[in-house]
Amino acid sequence: MTSINVAIIGAGVVGKAFVNQIASIKSKITFNVIHLATSKKALVSQDYKPLDLSSGWESNLAAATQTPFSLEQLLEYLKKSPEPVILVDNTSNETIAKFYPQFVANGICIATPNKKAFSSDLNLWNNIFNDKIGAGLVYHEATVGAGLPIISTLHDLINTGDKVELIEGILSGSLSFILNTFSTVNPNNTKFSEIVSKAKTLGYLEPDPRDDLNGMDFARKVTILARIAGFKVESPSAFPITSLIPKPLESVPTGEEFMSKLPDYDSSFEQLKKEAADEGKVLRYVGKVDFPNKSVTVGFQKYDASHPFASLQGSDNVLAIKTERYQNPLIVQGAGAGAEVTAAGVLADVIKIAERL
Amino acid sequence: MTSINVAIIGAGVVGKAFVNQIASIKSKITFNVIHLATSKKALVSQDYKPLDLSSGWESNLAAATQTPFSLEQLLEYLKKSPEPVILVDNTSNETIAKFYPQFVANGICIATPNKKAFSSDLNLWNNIFNDKIGAGLVYHEATVGAGLPIISTLHDLINTGDKVELIEGILSGSLSFILNTFSTVNPNNTKFSEIVSKAKTLGYLEPDPRDDLNGMDFARKVTILARIAGFKVESPSAFPITSLIPKPLESVPTGEEFMSKLPDYDSSFEQLKKEAADEGKVLRYVGKVDFPNKSVTVGFQKYDASHPFASLQGSDNVLAIKTERYQNPLIVQGAGAGAEVTAAGVLADVIKIAERL
Ligand SMILES: NC(=O)c1ccc[n+]([C@@H]2O[C@H](COP(=O)([O-])OP(=O)(O)OC[C@H]3O[C@@H](n4cnc5c(N)ncnc54)[C@H](OP(=O)(O)O)[C@@H]3O)[C@@H](O)[C@H]2O)c1
Ligand SMILES: NC(=O)c1ccc[n+]([C@@H]2O[C@H](COP(=O)([O-])OP(=O)(O)OC[C@H]3O[C@@H](n4cnc5c(N)ncnc54)[C@H](OP(=O)(O)O)[C@@H]3O)[C@@H](O)[C@H]2O)c1
Repeated sequence: MTSINVAIIGAGVVGKAFVNQIASIKSKITFNVIHLATSKKALVSQDYKPLDLSSGWESNLAAATQTPFSLEQLLEYLKKSPEPVILVDNTSNETIAKFYPQFVANGICIATPNKKAFSSDLNLWNNIFNDKIGAGLVYHEATVGAGLPIISTLHDLINTGDKVELIEGILSGSLSFILNTFSTVNPNNTKFSEIVSKAKTLGYLEPDPRDDLNGMDFARKVTILARIAGFKVESPSAFPITSLIPKPLESVPTGEEFMSKLPDYDSSFEQLKKEAADEGKVLRYVGKVDFPNKSVTVGFQKYDASHPFASLQGSDNVLAIKTERYQNPLIVQGAGAGAEVTAAGVLADVIKIAERL
Repeated sequence: MTSINVAIIGAGVVGKAFVNQIASIKSKITFNVIHLATSKKALVSQDYKPLDLSSGWESNLAAATQTPFSLEQLLEYLKKSPEPVILVDNTSNETIAKFYPQFVANGICIATPNKKAFSSDLNLWNNIFNDKIGAGLVYHEATVGAGLPIISTLHDLINTGDKVELIEGILSGSLSFILNTFSTVNPNNTKFSEIVSKAKTLGYLEPDPRDDLNGMDFARKVTILARIAGFKVESPSAFPITSLIPKPLESVPTGEEFMSKLPDYDSSFEQLKKEAADEGKVLRYVGKVDFPNKSVTVGFQKYDASHPFASLQGSDNVLAIKTERYQNPLIVQGAGAGAEVTAAGVLADVIKIAERL
């Protein structure tokens, strides 16, 4: 019976679901959670015995009197663990991400849905995946498409010697929903701004919708896939991203004002949709890594009604990988966001790391 | 630098591609092939040093004077390996499959595209996956959908505590091609028997097409998925399979005679297609594992034009998994047969096993 110690940072939407999942799975490996912290509170097992994660853990964490460790303190604490340790970073924090190289250099493994470490400077990526002997393993399936088998599949293709030619994906749940609703195989007349409002009501958008509509979060995911496939992308600002924010609305001060002015720009989106429809196609917002043309882009693309991207439903993500061996692309599709599927993506990584320890 | 010894049985369509792939991949792990055998010839490294698999290996194997080991001899040979061993079974042999429990009990790991061990008696399955301490790991991604991430994805869902509700898949390349060509979103008039002829010309069918059209190979794949998802299917003959062979043609002696008489039955297939078209749907040949209804079936299903199964292309496979967490199913799609993608599926398993050793 193997035992693995797990240290968790972040207990928000994903973190809560993750704690509940890890506390209830049946596994040949025993996972002992020894550390659970938010930015304000921490539960820490000083003797490395498992914390109690039965139903009351949320109130225990809320009532905790211990303030969180600094990253240096956390590292020292984890280095002294009598069992191998997996650090689970369920935050979107950049400072923690920048500290990954130190954790990894000390043999601590990481599983995370936090994109920051993998989509910032290429230097940070290289420092994390440096292949040094004794380095901790780093798994991050949930950084792209949540629990969908995207990163693992790309790794398998490359590890077995396949050559990636084209990666095309719809990797934002909110932008997927907006375009799937806006541009349909049987044309409809719904206005772009109305659909953005609906996406906001459904909780698909950030408090200021421009944080989704600028395409930056999407571009981070494309950066990650491009790097795995061997494209040395310096950062998500190193390639062209078509923002969905009309230029004049970039500078309006609040999200509310942005929403109120968006209808003024419906006609330009209507025009794009019409151009696609005139060719018998639908409009989609897509990330592309194109090897023959050595280009990485995020922006509009048009697809035939029979293309899998045309019949995408709701807020689903989809990824199509064309390779030397898969001339008809390998496609993975499904929910690419949500607490449970994201937490499950992180937990599957934790299990895979543990199986290798 | 880890070294793993690899023993290969089978050097046919998949086996050849596998040998070429494993000989050329770049990996942190060194894979030393120490044994390579067909039913008639064998190359065996008596001192467990790697065989030479540079370009001339096929003629070396053809010129080999050593006759293959018996399974007992192979086991003894592998038990004495100074490094951990992965046995790669690239045959479709049932006797070898029945011997897996002995290999596994002796700590030898297995990676294979051979369905036999996993789709015969449930007893054999239980003897292979018995979780005994020190048992070898058994990976078989390529038994369903070749290199597509189907089995690994199903395992991840289950390992993280998700509950499978419905598995639906088109898991035969030849039957996928036949139905995708026969029943299309924009109706066509091609006859069923003509499409079967075309599939035969394209090399998609067994020498006697009835070996595909009876649905048995497909049912083996469905058996494997059902068992992973927790359905204790006794054997592929324990559930209903709709055969595509017209009853009176089951007993005609040869494949040629079968093909010559198939046109007499076009009208009954035409009728099925028409029934689907009258509902605005297409006809597909699908495997289903339905948990709420506790049923496993292989047969015809009808799908709306907007359903991902309706727009399937060529001989692609597709699998949709509906779970508690993925109410909108998780979908994996792409080539489900072919030497290179199947060999890559086996090789990805070999790498994953090696990473765990
Ligand atoms: N939600 C999804 O559907 C989804 C899908 C894919 C990927 N992801 C990724 O998953 C991660 C978590 O997302 P989420 O939706 O769970 O976010 P969230 O609800 O905002 O939760 C973030 C958690 O991290 C904690 N945290 C932030 N900074 C911290 C720090 N410096 N030290 C310790 N704890 C800190 C927060 O604690 P406080 O409350 O104390 O600030 C909070 O508990 C993000 O990287 C996100 O991009 C999410
Ligand atoms: N081809 C595909 O696209 C595909 C896709 C998915 C899965 N698969 C599976 O992959 C496996 C291999 O398929 P394949 O297309 O490569 O078949 P194949 O071309 O018929 O090759 C089979 C190989 O196995 C050898 N063999 C058979 N029985 C043996 C025995 N008792 N001892 C030693 N060697 C033996 C054969 O040697 P001899 O020539 O001496 O008989 C031959 O080298 C099958 O299980 C198949 O179902 C294939």
